[in-house]
Amino acid sequence: MSEATLDIIGIGNAIVDVQARAENDFLVERGLDKGAMRLIDAEEAEALYDAMGPGTESSGGSAANTCAVAAALGARVGYLGKVAADALGRVFAHDIRAAGVHFPTPPLEGGAPTARCLILVTPDGQRTMNTFLGAAVHFTEGDADPTEVARAGILYLEGYLFDPPAAQAAFRAAARAAHAAGRRVALTLSDPFCVHRHRDAFREFVRKEADILFTNEAEILALYETEDFAEAARQVATEVSLAALTRSERGSVLLAGGERHEIAAAPAQVVDTTGAGDAYAAGVLAALARGLPLPECGRWGSVAAAEIIGHFGARPQADLRRLLGVAA
Amino acid sequence: MSEATLDIIGIGNAIVDVQARAENDFLVERGLDKGAMRLIDAEEAEALYDAMGPGTESSGGSAANTCAVAAALGARVGYLGKVAADALGRVFAHDIRAAGVHFPTPPLEGGAPTARCLILVTPDGQRTMNTFLGAAVHFTEGDADPTEVARAGILYLEGYLFDPPAAQAAFRAAARAAHAAGRRVALTLSDPFCVHRHRDAFREFVRKEADILFTNEAEILALYETEDFAEAARQVATEVSLAALTRSERGSVLLAGGERHEIAAAPAQVVDTTGAGDAYAAGVLAALARGLPLPECGRWGSVAAAEIIGHFGARPQADLRRLLGVAA
Repeated sequence: MSEATLDIIGIGNAIVDVQARAENDFLVERGLDKGAMRLIDAEEAEALYDAMGPGTESSGGSAANTCAVAAALGARVGYLGKVAADALGRVFAHDIRAAGVHFPTPPLEGGAPTARCLILVTPDGQRTMNTFLGAAVHFTEGDADPTEVARAGILYLEGYLFDPPAAQAAFRAAARAAHAAGRRVALTLSDPFCVHRHRDAFREFVRKEADILFTNEAEILALYETEDFAEAARQVATEVSLAALTRSERGSVLLAGGERHEIAAAPAQVVDTTGAGDAYAAGVLAALARGLPLPECGRWGSVAAAEIIGHFGARPQADLRRLLGVAA
Repeated sequence: MSEATLDIIGIGNAIVDVQARAENDFLVERGLDKGAMRLIDAEEAEALYDAMGPGTESSGGSAANTCAVAAALGARVGYLGKVAADALGRVFAHDIRAAGVHFPTPPLEGGAPTARCLILVTPDGQRTMNTFLGAAVHFTEGDADPTEVARAGILYLEGYLFDPPAAQAAFRAAARAAHAAGRRVALTLSDPFCVHRHRDAFREFVRKEADILFTNEAEILALYETEDFAEAARQVATEVSLAALTRSERGSVLLAGGERHEIAAAPAQVVDTTGAGDAYAAGVLAALARGLPLPECGRWGSVAAAEIIGHFGARPQADLRRLLGVAA
């Protein structure tokens, strides 16, 4: 097993977020499930964009957010994901590289446009996401470069990649490449609806491939088809070596073998919860990469999440290392 | 004189802002004057974008920001400005229309791309702006539709329009159309460097065409080539019927004929001063359109500015009418 030259490599849908404030009525009128992510086609994306309020564009994508936050925390990070050779693709590539993340995936030429997620933020700070995947569905096995994957101590995969069929295959190939190189594989379940859509595939992947699992309450209940969080937690602890269960303002629970650590949420003023889970995962992974003990990994996750929900957008604005009180 | 069907129509450079945090050293290394706006060409725009940090894209443009804020304050608002038929142009048009602003200018086909302003926000909340004008310089007399201009009670012009030569002609044509229809003409000086570049033209326009002038301290000192604010204030009061002089955290002064009103700044936590002056002008103009007394016009300006500097970006996020305690 060669030495890792990256701490983390993420794979995910490479997406530019278009965030706008929306009233609850706007969601109700359009039958949108508050807080969920749904996939929309090009036509619906146009129609919804025309109807929604003034927006702010910023690079997003769940795993890409995690990678940007982990880099801000001092980890050595890479990212694989597919944008198009268009204006939004240029924005995505600029932003992730400017965040200090190695991003080698070539853009898609002459096909679908760069993926965008139309995010409606309601006055309660919740976000309802409408994703047009565009070029992101063209992320295929060839893009999951095994040499890049083998460079990183932890491969981090977002559950949303189960949606594009070709990406699912790339996902499995990347996990095999990581394990072949003696690396760990981390998965985030991403979204309860995504778990419903692909439950069997997720169950199998968690059992057979995932060493580390990130999930919130709704997602893990969906995964194990139970209403009982304690039961779901018991089950996941037998399937992965480290499970990080997030519970919004009630903090998180880290389970590793027989260990159980309850982690408090860091104080935060909720402006916009977009990217909170992504930032939490980044904190945990960046601390794991430094070899820190689990309670400290949890604290890094909580502090990173608190910074992200205190402002609009899913990428950090403050100096995270200063917030954590750690050296650069 | 027919009845106005709009309260305000703005004309300005239609720009998408790309904002990124930057350290003071970044400005020093590149010889950038903190707090100023400078014009850059396509090549320099590429180089600076490559070097700067992760960005957030949002619609900007000084007069366009003012129009969006005035619409949020309940005024009936139109805007004229030139974007290209490209992705950023689509973003600009969507955002200003979604803000409730009438925006009839057709996009430029097959020419320069939509203008962008690369804004570097330093830890002190100041912004240093680097503008590539692109399609905005193709705003010509034909775009300053006299029918649209005549619809609005107040024509609002940004001083930055003195930079593109064709826009300057359009600017004068619009002022003539407004006065011919019995409307008022308002001007904002925009930037001290812009005033230096075009001082004689500004002086003449203020004396001959402007009924209302918005300016900050640095701008009015540049206009009258003096170091003495009181002297500059005395002079401007003889040249326009209403002058609004802004002094950052020291509030503003409204001068109209013999009247002088000192307006306190509204309490604000400075996150990013981008658009503070634009929002102040919007507050004053929207209140003028309602026929409110001058001290109340000043209060509207202060409250709108305080909202804008409390977050990243130059367009409002909170409910401005609620902040002012006025009915919708």
